[in-house]
Amino acid sequence: MEYKEDFCNLGFANIDIDRKVRRGYSEVIYSPGKSKVQLKRIARELIRNKQDLLFTRLDRDNFNYLKKSFSKLKYNALAKIGYLVKKSRVRKTSLVAVISAGTSDIPVAEEAVVTLELMGNRVVKLYDVGVAGVHRLMNNIDVIKKAKVIVVVAGMEGALASIVSGLVSCPVIAVPTSCGYGANFGGLSALLTMLNCCSAGVAVVNIDNGFGAGYFASLINR
Amino acid sequence: MEYKEDFCNLGFANIDIDRKVRRGYSEVIYSPGKSKVQLKRIARELIRNKQDLLFTRLDRDNFNYLKKSFSKLKYNALAKIGYLVKKSRVRKTSLVAVISAGTSDIPVAEEAVVTLELMGNRVVKLYDVGVAGVHRLMNNIDVIKKAKVIVVVAGMEGALASIVSGLVSCPVIAVPTSCGYGANFGGLSALLTMLNCCSAGVAVVNIDNGFGAGYFASLINR
Amino acid sequence: MEYKEDFCNLGFANIDIDRKVRRGYSEVIYSPGKSKVQLKRIARELIRNKQDLLFTRLDRDNFNYLKKSFSKLKYNALAKIGYLVKKSRVRKTSLVAVISAGTSDIPVAEEAVVTLELMGNRVVKLYDVGVAGVHRLMNNIDVIKKAKVIVVVAGMEGALASIVSGLVSCPVIAVPTSCGYGANFGGLSALLTMLNCCSAGVAVVNIDNGFGAGYFASLINR
Amino acid sequence: MEYKEDFCNLGFANIDIDRKVRRGYSEVIYSPGKSKVQLKRIARELIRNKQDLLFTRLDRDNFNYLKKSFSKLKYNALAKIGYLVKKSRVRKTSLVAVISAGTSDIPVAEEAVVTLELMGNRVVKLYDVGVAGVHRLMNNIDVIKKAKVIVVVAGMEGALASIVSGLVSCPVIAVPTSCGYGANFGGLSALLTMLNCCSAGVAVVNIDNGFGAGYFASLINR
Amino acid sequence: MEYKEDFCNLGFANIDIDRKVRRGYSEVIYSPGKSKVQLKRIARELIRNKQDLLFTRLDRDNFNYLKKSFSKLKYNALAKIGYLVKKSRVRKTSLVAVISAGTSDIPVAEEAVVTLELMGNRVVKLYDVGVAGVHRLMNNIDVIKKAKVIVVVAGMEGALASIVSGLVSCPVIAVPTSCGYGANFGGLSALLTMLNCCSAGVAVVNIDNGFGAGYFASLINR
Amino acid sequence: MEYKEDFCNLGFANIDIDRKVRRGYSEVIYSPGKSKVQLKRIARELIRNKQDLLFTRLDRDNFNYLKKSFSKLKYNALAKIGYLVKKSRVRKTSLVAVISAGTSDIPVAEEAVVTLELMGNRVVKLYDVGVAGVHRLMNNIDVIKKAKVIVVVAGMEGALASIVSGLVSCPVIAVPTSCGYGANFGGLSALLTMLNCCSAGVAVVNIDNGFGAGYFASLINR
Amino acid sequence: MEYKEDFCNLGFANIDIDRKVRRGYSEVIYSPGKSKVQLKRIARELIRNKQDLLFTRLDRDNFNYLKKSFSKLKYNALAKIGYLVKKSRVRKTSLVAVISAGTSDIPVAEEAVVTLELMGNRVVKLYDVGVAGVHRLMNNIDVIKKAKVIVVVAGMEGALASIVSGLVSCPVIAVPTSCGYGANFGGLSALLTMLNCCSAGVAVVNIDNGFGAGYFASLINR
Amino acid sequence: MEYKEDFCNLGFANIDIDRKVRRGYSEVIYSPGKSKVQLKRIARELIRNKQDLLFTRLDRDNFNYLKKSFSKLKYNALAKIGYLVKKSRVRKTSLVAVISAGTSDIPVAEEAVVTLELMGNRVVKLYDVGVAGVHRLMNNIDVIKKAKVIVVVAGMEGALASIVSGLVSCPVIAVPTSCGYGANFGGLSALLTMLNCCSAGVAVVNIDNGFGAGYFASLINR
Repeated sequence: MEYKEDFCNLGFANIDIDRKVRRGYSEVIYSPGKSKVQLKRIARELIRNKQDLLFTRLDRDNFNYLKKSFSKLKYNALAKIGYLVKKSRVRKTSLVAVISAGTSDIPVAEEAVVTLELMGNRVVKLYDVGVAGVHRLMNNIDVIKKAKVIVVVAGMEGALASIVSGLVSCPVIAVPTSCGYGANFGGLSALLTMLNCCSAGVAVVNIDNGFGAGYFASLINR
Repeated sequence: MEYKEDFCNLGFANIDIDRKVRRGYSEVIYSPGKSKVQLKRIARELIRNKQDLLFTRLDRDNFNYLKKSFSKLKYNALAKIGYLVKKSRVRKTSLVAVISAGTSDIPVAEEAVVTLELMGNRVVKLYDVGVAGVHRLMNNIDVIKKAKVIVVVAGMEGALASIVSGLVSCPVIAVPTSCGYGANFGGLSALLTMLNCCSAGVAVVNIDNGFGAGYFASLINR
Repeated sequence: MEYKEDFCNLGFANIDIDRKVRRGYSEVIYSPGKSKVQLKRIARELIRNKQDLLFTRLDRDNFNYLKKSFSKLKYNALAKIGYLVKKSRVRKTSLVAVISAGTSDIPVAEEAVVTLELMGNRVVKLYDVGVAGVHRLMNNIDVIKKAKVIVVVAGMEGALASIVSGLVSCPVIAVPTSCGYGANFGGLSALLTMLNCCSAGVAVVNIDNGFGAGYFASLINR
Repeated sequence: MEYKEDFCNLGFANIDIDRKVRRGYSEVIYSPGKSKVQLKRIARELIRNKQDLLFTRLDRDNFNYLKKSFSKLKYNALAKIGYLVKKSRVRKTSLVAVISAGTSDIPVAEEAVVTLELMGNRVVKLYDVGVAGVHRLMNNIDVIKKAKVIVVVAGMEGALASIVSGLVSCPVIAVPTSCGYGANFGGLSALLTMLNCCSAGVAVVNIDNGFGAGYFASLINR
Repeated sequence: MEYKEDFCNLGFANIDIDRKVRRGYSEVIYSPGKSKVQLKRIARELIRNKQDLLFTRLDRDNFNYLKKSFSKLKYNALAKIGYLVKKSRVRKTSLVAVISAGTSDIPVAEEAVVTLELMGNRVVKLYDVGVAGVHRLMNNIDVIKKAKVIVVVAGMEGALASIVSGLVSCPVIAVPTSCGYGANFGGLSALLTMLNCCSAGVAVVNIDNGFGAGYFASLINR
Repeated sequence: MEYKEDFCNLGFANIDIDRKVRRGYSEVIYSPGKSKVQLKRIARELIRNKQDLLFTRLDRDNFNYLKKSFSKLKYNALAKIGYLVKKSRVRKTSLVAVISAGTSDIPVAEEAVVTLELMGNRVVKLYDVGVAGVHRLMNNIDVIKKAKVIVVVAGMEGALASIVSGLVSCPVIAVPTSCGYGANFGGLSALLTMLNCCSAGVAVVNIDNGFGAGYFASLINR
Repeated sequence: MEYKEDFCNLGFANIDIDRKVRRGYSEVIYSPGKSKVQLKRIARELIRNKQDLLFTRLDRDNFNYLKKSFSKLKYNALAKIGYLVKKSRVRKTSLVAVISAGTSDIPVAEEAVVTLELMGNRVVKLYDVGVAGVHRLMNNIDVIKKAKVIVVVAGMEGALASIVSGLVSCPVIAVPTSCGYGANFGGLSALLTMLNCCSAGVAVVNIDNGFGAGYFASLINR
Repeated sequence: MEYKEDFCNLGFANIDIDRKVRRGYSEVIYSPGKSKVQLKRIARELIRNKQDLLFTRLDRDNFNYLKKSFSKLKYNALAKIGYLVKKSRVRKTSLVAVISAGTSDIPVAEEAVVTLELMGNRVVKLYDVGVAGVHRLMNNIDVIKKAKVIVVVAGMEGALASIVSGLVSCPVIAVPTSCGYGANFGGLSALLTMLNCCSAGVAVVNIDNGFGAGYFASLINR
């Protein structure tokens, strides 16, 4: 087996140009811990190699800085995603549902939604339908059952993933969030709940990782 | 304020004879870590002082030993409770529901049930109605709504307490169990789930503590 | 079984209008993580549906913002609760005691007190009676014994719940607080103490969850 | 919305007969914590309702007991799965790869494989290709790239999921195992590794949960 | 500064002969993890150097083996201590109190008592006076107040150390025990309780370390 | 037994006036979580009852505020202790040594030193003698051996307590500090080290609890 | 870059034949979790490819089984290592010291020693020289200073690695062991101590991983 | 054995002048927790004793302060190291490779690099070659194989150390970083991954401890 040298070494970063071919999607840039200049040089290199731009967890301040150099860069403030997708993808016909337990979980849910939409998926959103009033979920059961994949975003006790999974036949991707306080321990409670889900058909991503859930859902929805 | 000397010092144990007056129920004996002889001497002292006997987590072997000395002692093998209640209490008219998520949670649920019944409560049981098939719970909603207090027993992700609490107006006592494996960490996952319950009206007892839940429910149901 | 559509979908929130009927009390709004505009829109929707308003963990800044739109909204700064209860409830005749171990635990205790009072309970407060000087508690034993339910709020080692429960025959709701330092690990020490209480008759809510304890106590005190 | 009463109440268990319609597959029985008699009664009820049988984590001893009543029941000793699938399913044409890091991870991997095969999937196995000798993986890259879904099973440091995901464009389901010692803390190390995977396209199930991974992979592979 | 070679190298062990001079007491042997032969050779070497013998956590089986070679070796089965103290020490006149919360904590308490007595202290024991019935403690307050040092042994929530310390002016040494279940996590709950004690005058030793508490109390009681 | 009402109820605080008699030292005020006004009212009440003032963890800002009302209040900025001790105590003749591992541990060590001195002890300080250069400790062995009690303050790996204890015959009180980073986890590493000390004669107080160590040492040094 | 197919696929194991060339030493077999037959087939394959045999954590029972097929296989019972090294290596001239804190740590230390010797190193052993009597270490300082690499094996508080490192100029490899009890939490205390070592020049391997330490030391000692 | 008094007591610090002779390198100063004045006095003392200066984790603000007194002091802002090395060391001929998984890990990697260079090592850097695109690593395999020691710096899942170690025959020092979010728990995930490395030849230093890794690598590279 042979490796081609399909990456660009910037010293502080090795842009993985081969990724679009190998993995089906351009390298996505996780922004925290990178300086403004590093972000700009990475963006320039990706564009030079005809890649899409997708920056996750991008502060507005950093977005404004990048915007000066890349005027077509767009920003979703709720999801904290900066993006520049050169040509619009063909919409997939099947549906992905993104469901959040509470209002506080929405930023993480939106990160999943924007990721899904940029990767060409049709998305339906269902927010604040947590288990304290489960009829809010039940009344939307028809919409939920139409989805080919479901992303469930929940903090606190994270019980929503189990409930949703028990109602449907499609795979459910659970995203624990750090919303809550006390014995929630930064999202640990929701994470453990989701990993111990007694309903088969649930898999879990990292705490607050809306991007990862959206990306994974998009891989399924092909 | 003055203290009376209402306890019997056996050297290894101080039997709290005053407890029935002070707290409304005789001292309950937690059996693990006590030798056969210690259990027998405690039992004798309680009887001598006209107290009820209630041994929790009593092995059958220890029960058989005690049975020789106290022929009227009874045993519930599932709940691992040995008891000798001298006169039958007047049944309370209001209802306590004990609900378990799975079949494996039944021993803990039974510990709550037996405790409740020995303390004079009417109990209705609803087992194996966990969130993987929530319609099993929904179909029993009328029974559940009649309860004045509810005990919910669940391991794994422990989501059942949140669901039940969201459907009723009475207090829910949640008992996490150590049923499960992997990232359940001996009941920690269900414990954290229940503590982080987003539905108000839930309080939690120690992992596998069916006795404590039954006792607490009985205090409410007066 | 059928579900009615008793909720209002605001997109970011599904107001649970049915809750007052189903659970006996209007939906309570947990304020952190919600924007000013979201809080206002939720308040408006609740009022439009003739519900009470109760915002927990509401910053003064957010309260001031809401006050402009809802001039009758009141604020308890210590408990961080904003509320607008349309007609005064009939006071329940039985008593709830709220006991705190230290002065630093008072904000959490006050959250319980305000919640209890808004739900129509008579409350007696007993603050700074922790175990370092247990005679402060003992001298109030007569007051404590009159309560139908007791809420005990304690940080650091959280031993007060055990002591109180050992003296009374009513249910004790224990609230661990995050007060302390070092090996208190954000309230974990008090939480574990209370869960492992050797005195039956204690149930526990989440760390710093004064609201949950007050709500639960009110459910019992009917 | 209405619920039908499609479940059989055995007292200790509520068999979810509706599950095949609702979720696409019969209820799967998790065997630990259930008595021989309970297992038999559940099996009888499932068969009476024309469901498939699938018992996970079934000891040989329990299998032998069940075999007496259900002579067609089969057993995979490595995966600890007992099953009785009435008619053979049509094989799906697309491929699922199950990859294990070490020899000790094989029982968990086999649980995934048997689950996948019983649900009608074509499976290719690749065992003992962990990162200590990554060329063993690289030499099989062509097989791996043909898979529509990949299950990666790894204990110790659990790094294999990241590597595999970085090489392919399909979703990867990661199963941490409890194989290892010391600071592996019962599978925690592999679990955290997989949750923190820097390569998008990985979702995680509970420690040692081969069944859950196989089930989830099968849902994707439709 | 110069070091003398006051130790005996047995290959697998370096007997610290200098310890009696340097630290005031012979080296104490922690028995687990040592073979019968190793224990015997260590014992022989200590005796040859005119040291006392004190083996902690010694199984009866190992004691019986040692007894054959050292006929004067004595054994306290409850404390699991084997000892051979050549001449009786002069009793110290001041008193050490050893207090246990429950009957199950007695083995750890006895380890402290035997250690204290072998080191020449007068000891008073007070067992099963935990906080579930605090009057059992209060009635012994006169005895407690006479002590110059107090050892408090408690599992579960470990609240007894705080109570005792709040009543006295002498130092309190707290020993958490692993007695309990569920969220006691092997003694962690009692350990954290004791470390977070809000009453000054408490110091803590390792979980179940009755020997360490007795030794430390003896150092104080000089 | 009878309780006198020797405490002053300020509503938010119950000043324990009896403490000086009962426990040998006035109530010490832990300042965090108390408002300026609360601190002042507590101080006034203590003075009115002829008690000493000792405020731990007092910010300079709060000290300046109190200073306006109590002009004789003094402040040790390193130890963050405010105090007003009415008449100088007779110095005890025996010596307490306070030893710190590193320069960063000095604030905690100073908290112990100031506490000890205010309680009338003679103190010798030995700072920055950690195990990375153990000869710095060895060269002071003569001073160390003169102490009747030793307080050892150490962060990071906390090994100093074991070393010191192995060299002396007096009790050693170990104070873990939160100094360090990474896997020190806020002082957990030093705490566990000290609890697991293989040298008998060590007891431990809470992380960063210099006051508690000084107080405990003073109780011994009588 | 190209990969050769230097491994043997046995289905359950891929023997990494290339490892001797690539990494300088044959693949070492970790025995737990492998069946007798698997161990034998792996051994046969390694021998067929002219590799050395080294089985770690091999039970005597498994050794006896393998011995029947491979009569030249040798066994070190203390280290639980089975080995068959075809030709004796040239002894390296520089020295490795293996130091253990206590007698109970010897099995882990021996695993390091045997690994080192099989890889051709000269080893000096120094056992039971823990910090409770640091002069036992100091008296051997000349031997220690001659070593080119040092392996320190310690459980409980694990302080020995810091002490040793502070005395020498060569690299120290620290092996935490699970020896101890209570708050040692299976070796966690020693692990954290060693990771937080304030003396530069220490690196750590997994709990009880004597083999890993020996292997790493041998890589340095070339 | 005798100790010389080769240290300078500044009261708050004991400068270990003997260290250069004993351990081969001057005492390195960990800056956090030390005041500006303390840092300056330590620097003056080291210079007066003809030692090198090396301050780790030095803020630019503190550097600027020191620069006024020590005009030759230099600063590496990325590594946060201030240094003043009096005469240039002879470069060692063998090579150390420092490899980082991501761009965010570079500050920790640079701390290792600067430490290595100041200690006279030849260093090659390879940044952002994490496992999400393993070909970036593979293409540099020739450089990697030339190294005598390798430092691998990685956060998130920390899998890079295992991969690199599996490819080479030299020792690998793994540095977990706190880069990541959610279930990374401040670097715990990478730490556990590296400790559980299934590839022999890896040892681990504390989270974010680039200095410690560089120092350890330099000790090997002699």
